[in-house]
Amino acid sequence: MLLRNCWYMAGWQSDFASTTPTSRTIAGEALVFYRRSNGELVVMEDRCSHRFAPLSRGRVEGDDIRCMYHGLKFGPDGVCNHIPQQSYVSNRIRVRTFPIIERHGAAWIWLGETNKAQSEHVPHFAGPSNYEWSMVPDQIELQANYALLNDNLLDLSHVAFVHRESFGAGDEASATEFSRAEVTTTSLANGGVRVERRMRNATVPPYVRDYLETKRADFYVKSEHLIPGIFLLNTRCYPLGTFDQGEEALSCATPFLAEFSCQAVTPINERATRYFFALGPWSALGDLKQFYLDIGRRAFAEDRAMLEAQQEVIDRSPNARFANLTMDKASAAFRAQMNKLIREEGALHASYEPG
Amino acid sequence: MLLRNCWYMAGWQSDFASTTPTSRTIAGEALVFYRRSNGELVVMEDRCSHRFAPLSRGRVEGDDIRCMYHGLKFGPDGVCNHIPQQSYVSNRIRVRTFPIIERHGAAWIWLGETNKAQSEHVPHFAGPSNYEWSMVPDQIELQANYALLNDNLLDLSHVAFVHRESFGAGDEASATEFSRAEVTTTSLANGGVRVERRMRNATVPPYVRDYLETKRADFYVKSEHLIPGIFLLNTRCYPLGTFDQGEEALSCATPFLAEFSCQAVTPINERATRYFFALGPWSALGDLKQFYLDIGRRAFAEDRAMLEAQQEVIDRSPNARFANLTMDKASAAFRAQMNKLIREEGALHASYEPG
Amino acid sequence: MLLRNCWYMAGWQSDFASTTPTSRTIAGEALVFYRRSNGELVVMEDRCSHRFAPLSRGRVEGDDIRCMYHGLKFGPDGVCNHIPQQSYVSNRIRVRTFPIIERHGAAWIWLGETNKAQSEHVPHFAGPSNYEWSMVPDQIELQANYALLNDNLLDLSHVAFVHRESFGAGDEASATEFSRAEVTTTSLANGGVRVERRMRNATVPPYVRDYLETKRADFYVKSEHLIPGIFLLNTRCYPLGTFDQGEEALSCATPFLAEFSCQAVTPINERATRYFFALGPWSALGDLKQFYLDIGRRAFAEDRAMLEAQQEVIDRSPNARFANLTMDKASAAFRAQMNKLIREEGALHASYEPG
Repeated sequence: MLLRNCWYMAGWQSDFASTTPTSRTIAGEALVFYRRSNGELVVMEDRCSHRFAPLSRGRVEGDDIRCMYHGLKFGPDGVCNHIPQQSYVSNRIRVRTFPIIERHGAAWIWLGETNKAQSEHVPHFAGPSNYEWSMVPDQIELQANYALLNDNLLDLSHVAFVHRESFGAGDEASATEFSRAEVTTTSLANGGVRVERRMRNATVPPYVRDYLETKRADFYVKSEHLIPGIFLLNTRCYPLGTFDQGEEALSCATPFLAEFSCQAVTPINERATRYFFALGPWSALGDLKQFYLDIGRRAFAEDRAMLEAQQEVIDRSPNARFANLTMDKASAAFRAQMNKLIREEGALHASYEPG
Repeated sequence: MLLRNCWYMAGWQSDFASTTPTSRTIAGEALVFYRRSNGELVVMEDRCSHRFAPLSRGRVEGDDIRCMYHGLKFGPDGVCNHIPQQSYVSNRIRVRTFPIIERHGAAWIWLGETNKAQSEHVPHFAGPSNYEWSMVPDQIELQANYALLNDNLLDLSHVAFVHRESFGAGDEASATEFSRAEVTTTSLANGGVRVERRMRNATVPPYVRDYLETKRADFYVKSEHLIPGIFLLNTRCYPLGTFDQGEEALSCATPFLAEFSCQAVTPINERATRYFFALGPWSALGDLKQFYLDIGRRAFAEDRAMLEAQQEVIDRSPNARFANLTMDKASAAFRAQMNKLIREEGALHASYEPG
Repeated sequence: MLLRNCWYMAGWQSDFASTTPTSRTIAGEALVFYRRSNGELVVMEDRCSHRFAPLSRGRVEGDDIRCMYHGLKFGPDGVCNHIPQQSYVSNRIRVRTFPIIERHGAAWIWLGETNKAQSEHVPHFAGPSNYEWSMVPDQIELQANYALLNDNLLDLSHVAFVHRESFGAGDEASATEFSRAEVTTTSLANGGVRVERRMRNATVPPYVRDYLETKRADFYVKSEHLIPGIFLLNTRCYPLGTFDQGEEALSCATPFLAEFSCQAVTPINERATRYFFALGPWSALGDLKQFYLDIGRRAFAEDRAMLEAQQEVIDRSPNARFANLTMDKASAAFRAQMNKLIREEGALHASYEPG
């Protein structure tokens, strides 16, 4: 049961070449992506109506894609417009297409009811061409259910344990600081969750220590986690003592370091996930962007190892249940939201769809 | 559900060594083949009655095969004739054997009711020792259902799309010529299908162009597709204008090039297929035989890639149905024949067999 | 259905490092092993109660193990004693632990009812530190059900066929001698089976021939096979004619060669088995121990190849049944014992356990 009425990130714009089709499975749907002659992205089922050859083995011809098994050709609306050896082509020979929008350097797909696909609901995001932040985009694939990755992002307390080799947070001091943080969790109107974390007089992470003149700072970390799995993480370091001057001071003070990370969790199917991320410092420190990417890659590889191990244990524990702890507040709220939406969609399908 | 009352090609004669057993699975039956002292081929279940060790790990001893786990020995009739540490051997200790005939350079096996196995029903075929044609035999394995390969062979319109790297048929001109061909489809008495294709003034394929003085010819292509998956493809090139002189002229005219291809589709199981092929020019142009083989191999690798991709899409589309088009006439007729035979066999088993 | 009320060999003592946890699956239970600060071995479920991360990816801290996903820490009794960001820790947050005993250079685990785990039932065994025998320990993994390995060990007649490359027993002479052996099978009180084999005037195996002055001897081979899969094999070579002087002579005579092999068959799950073995000559011939190990390793690789092939045939033969022969007397008796114990345990679970 995967949510369909939502914008999933399908890929970075650069993932989709201009002349050859690309295959990608999203939320269980095997899809083919190609660009028509004007560069616009088209996405449809990756299955020719005739004998089920994958269209991703096909050939792009102008605005159309031709199946390279027996030569059926489909337009960007999914309707077949040429069949070799046949003059009449029934318009019932067609494959399903889906709304797709390119924005923020990424492509966003809507797999649900077409009339509900509204472009203004494409989430905020900062991609490779953003001018405020120096972002480098990347992606990895995990053999784990997408909800485990959402959980992971919604509870950053794992940083002290999982990311001891990357974010340098493995030492007891960092763990203690992190657990001392003041945490505020807010439910957002669109079903998402905002988590704010304030850490006074905390240790500047080793990976930026060389670039700054101080080793301690006040940290403000804001993360927003949006349906179906959009994660926006903003970290700001302020001079020591800023937080003691009250909330107003925080609004006025200038951080001496700011970094942003935009991440998207897209289910491939119930057992695999594509994890997109772009991260970097603000443009003023743009030289550091490769440096940020390297640390991010190492960290996300640590997450992948843990989540894939976790998934294997879950697979062999069909009747066991998670224990819910204080640290799980945000992830529990997000899971509840997702489950509610999925249940509502399920009821909708049960009442409106045949069979 | 796979057909059993038919002669399947089990292998080329040279696939079966003279001193060591060979294991091969055909239509779901795991079998062991070995040659008795006079060279005759024997085939039986690949499973010792005792503890189910595979007999294909056994040792040929004269006319017998000995299981190399605990030493039981079986004769070519499948009956156990020696058990270590036991003087009395019950003749109930036996493994099932199957009729097998070596003909046309190949071995043909009958998995169904033994009393219906008639050697005159072994299909016509030309193998490596044929004197009229210079044939080179080969085989590949496909991870796809055998019916997809039968479909493929029964609709040669795929040549223009799948075989653009091998038969050089990818250009529009060839595709157009092919679709202009006059096609005659005839149902044969034994359940097979004959497809005749006449192409007037067509392009001589690039791969033989160097050997001929002309670049255009009248083509007569006859393919016969027999139960359970025997494909005989005869291609003849005549001087331009031959066809215009009527059917009688065709009978009398001498082609300036003739080639023959004999192929056998043998299911390993419902999801895998062994594909045997021999192909070559007539003996007069015997020097070209390796050349033909190379092109054939490239072409069949293209088929394999497409069919395996097609099988994967079918696997994930349990409820979807193929669209049937004009080009599918022959394959639909053949599938109908096969399904009828399989249904009849199923009814037979249901009424006569216990359990 | 695997037996639980028994001591399984979990590993050699040296398999369990002093500072890092080890994961191992035994009889379907995924387990984590670690040593507490005093070196004592602890074993528990390899699954953190919180989000099911495997504890084997965790960190040993003194007597405890910490999950390295979110930092929960568990004591050697399986009870959670620290949760980051929480002051109160419910003692319901716990993982299951199991009795474990280190003896004979190995670790023995009890997966069943804890109150029935009695240390005096740990089987006799000779491991690497035994003073009477020069034993070298090793282990392999087989993709086959453990009962097939028990069968294999309980019917040594396979030696003449399977071990022709290792024990040099492939020649007809050895096979004949082996089948001429006088075999006595005795059921033991604890459910095991003892097989004694006397071979008069038999060939000294080629692999020790160079070390002895004679090529023929009287052989006494005693094997004991204990629940759940403990195999103790004692081979003694006596001067020719010793057996003719009666049972008393055998008791008094000094063998000129003695070797011992202790083996343990531990099911990983229904389809995979861990096979532990230690083997060697008596201490007086300790120099030969590596030599024995090399032959043993080659022999057990031969067994593995045969058993994995056998398992594959069994998998595809769901309805077929083994034929039972004279040679299967001991293995049939042992299987009957095991099945009786498993049935009794199953009844117990059905009546006492909820759901």
